[in-house]
Amino acid sequence: MDAADAATNEVRAVAERARAAAAQLAPLPRRAKDAALLAMADGLEAATERVLAANAEDVRAGREAGTSEAMLDRLALTPDRVRAMADGLRHVATLPDPVGEVVRGSALPNGLELRQVRVPLGVVGIVYEARPNVTADAAGLCVKSGNAVLLRGSGSAYRSNTALVDVLAEAATAAGLPVDSIQLVPGADRASVQALMQARGLVDVLIPRGGAGLIQAVVTGSQVPVIETGVGNCTVYVDRWADLDKAVAIIVDAKTTRPSVCNAAETLLVHEAVAADFLPLAVKALRDKGVTLHADPRAAAYDDSAVPATDEDWAAEYLSLDLAVGVVDSLEAAVAHIRRWGSGHTEAIVTRDVDESRRFVRSLDSAAVMINASTRFTDGGEFGFGAEIGISTQKLHARGPMGLTELTSTTYVVTGDGHVRG
Amino acid sequence: MDAADAATNEVRAVAERARAAAAQLAPLPRRAKDAALLAMADGLEAATERVLAANAEDVRAGREAGTSEAMLDRLALTPDRVRAMADGLRHVATLPDPVGEVVRGSALPNGLELRQVRVPLGVVGIVYEARPNVTADAAGLCVKSGNAVLLRGSGSAYRSNTALVDVLAEAATAAGLPVDSIQLVPGADRASVQALMQARGLVDVLIPRGGAGLIQAVVTGSQVPVIETGVGNCTVYVDRWADLDKAVAIIVDAKTTRPSVCNAAETLLVHEAVAADFLPLAVKALRDKGVTLHADPRAAAYDDSAVPATDEDWAAEYLSLDLAVGVVDSLEAAVAHIRRWGSGHTEAIVTRDVDESRRFVRSLDSAAVMINASTRFTDGGEFGFGAEIGISTQKLHARGPMGLTELTSTTYVVTGDGHVRG
Repeated sequence: MDAADAATNEVRAVAERARAAAAQLAPLPRRAKDAALLAMADGLEAATERVLAANAEDVRAGREAGTSEAMLDRLALTPDRVRAMADGLRHVATLPDPVGEVVRGSALPNGLELRQVRVPLGVVGIVYEARPNVTADAAGLCVKSGNAVLLRGSGSAYRSNTALVDVLAEAATAAGLPVDSIQLVPGADRASVQALMQARGLVDVLIPRGGAGLIQAVVTGSQVPVIETGVGNCTVYVDRWADLDKAVAIIVDAKTTRPSVCNAAETLLVHEAVAADFLPLAVKALRDKGVTLHADPRAAAYDDSAVPATDEDWAAEYLSLDLAVGVVDSLEAAVAHIRRWGSGHTEAIVTRDVDESRRFVRSLDSAAVMINASTRFTDGGEFGFGAEIGISTQKLHARGPMGLTELTSTTYVVTGDGHVRG
Repeated sequence: MDAADAATNEVRAVAERARAAAAQLAPLPRRAKDAALLAMADGLEAATERVLAANAEDVRAGREAGTSEAMLDRLALTPDRVRAMADGLRHVATLPDPVGEVVRGSALPNGLELRQVRVPLGVVGIVYEARPNVTADAAGLCVKSGNAVLLRGSGSAYRSNTALVDVLAEAATAAGLPVDSIQLVPGADRASVQALMQARGLVDVLIPRGGAGLIQAVVTGSQVPVIETGVGNCTVYVDRWADLDKAVAIIVDAKTTRPSVCNAAETLLVHEAVAADFLPLAVKALRDKGVTLHADPRAAAYDDSAVPATDEDWAAEYLSLDLAVGVVDSLEAAVAHIRRWGSGHTEAIVTRDVDESRRFVRSLDSAAVMINASTRFTDGGEFGFGAEIGISTQKLHARGPMGLTELTSTTYVVTGDGHVRG
């Protein structure tokens, strides 16, 4: 048996245990799940020193391996960060239980009573990078939605995640949840992800969270259904009827408030009718924030330090203080550009014209469209979902920010009195 | 360039044209789509002779190839069957438009207006076997839901499907729908399905309809997201508190009214406490209808002509007048049996006891659960959806009968007044 077979067997064993746990988790009432979440939060805080010690080893190993300071900062835990994870679990306990919600229902003409009821998905696999806080967040959301969770974090955080899952699983089990409701996938190499992706029939869905490379690998390699998340090449289009001051505020917000996240803007398109008025204002405001523009020839006329934009720029998810800028002849040209180059995450139009905003919305094919608002609002917290497991950029099952509801499926329950179809 | 490459290029070209059509279809109002559906119905009826002539060639070729009479009957069209297809299109025109429906919406604390709105999926691929009526049904449902459709029927119906798609597409285009809204996938060999399954990014979803072999091949081989349909190993469980007369009527209905469909029952489980009273009645009623029982030892005591049941029987989707029968010690044993052997389609419990029915529903993991009703009710028409594109046995996106709603995704539309997150 080679290493890949060993990983497959080990992961399948873990997945089978998760499956058994899922069957017991599904019918649990809200009270039992909330009690477990609060116990997990308390257990985590009580184990702060143990978690920090494991994390310190990960950070030391990362530093020795030459990991960048930015990555080390994402990896590093502090007492405050541990407390924030615990508070996150307590917050999830306050959210409504999605399981049992009746999505639709009716009395059929023959007297049958039809209800479509939310149920857990079953076994949810999360494949993610760096940040150990995802471990606690994902575990909490899966517990609340009645799913067993398989956590496969990055190798660089393996010690941290092992400590976190030990603590969380122990607290959950002590509070009455089925054993194996929360498990770390053994192994930190590619083989464990491969084995997860082959576990069709055992794992109900895989959610990759991380960079484009990780997501693409899971999306194309998995036999298990996948929810694609997070790549965001978002565009702000400044229409000819835009309020230019609002447009400046929106592009500065969308580009600079947190450049490393998927809802940050990566492209700015400007209608030619307002380019001469708008671009000087925008260029100044963006350069004051340290933004480098990658401009097409018409936009470059307003920024003598701009870099010429290539196809790579239109396609780029920079995740940095870089912005591709172009001038377009019409709303249709902006839409065509977005359809060609965008990732279908979030686009924004700045306009005072109702017809233009309607046309923009109806011509696009993105998870979210903002009218006179920053792309940065595409977020489960901002949308009022209370928590977020990721942002889906696919069209099946879930699109846009995913909360607890998106971690459920449904079952039809039909009640009769001896009804036959005959 | 070999044959597979040629098929790939040809299918990609068709899919790219569908993609362009989908962008134009998406914003069309209901009126335009309904007009096209009515024109398609009229065009189809007017072309009855042409369609029947093409179909007669398929039937002749099938007969020469030694196709069974049952399969030839599924393939054969008649003037009545063509009229039924046309009436089906007219019926779809009467259904509400799912596109534009606001699924949820709220005013956020910061004043942003949030709406989650139904939009078409984009390009839908249907891979199906034999029956040419699927061609018209699927085209109609996709037009109504604003999706471009790629139809890949079986080789045995290629001439029929070519004629049908020609007629439907021509009528749709004449009525104002975008060219290429309805297309037949060229080629009737495996290479065209392979090419469809590779067309990720061009095709938004593939829906296989047909036998288990076809569905399994698409589910495991596709890079395009798939909605798994139709395999139904459905179980009727007769509880110790069952009304036995109703239980007999339900198992006879579930097994015998249409054995070849996915919502027919394939397994009967009986609580030991009622086996001696129930099984003699059930065996007689089922045998009167020509059913062969495949029984475990305890059930075989009530039917001296029963065949011994093996693991193959518990796993079988017979699609024939065969039924696996077993006696169980408890509701829990029935649930464990279904979880091990069932396909997650539909299960039924016959019981007068509320607690038992609740436990049955909450312990299972199936798309539909019937309480005192036949499994045959799992059907889009019976559920009041007006039409059905298939029955999903997966948990993501759609589960159970799929109507027009299940052919849509959603977009978040967020309207502000210059809102920034800051």
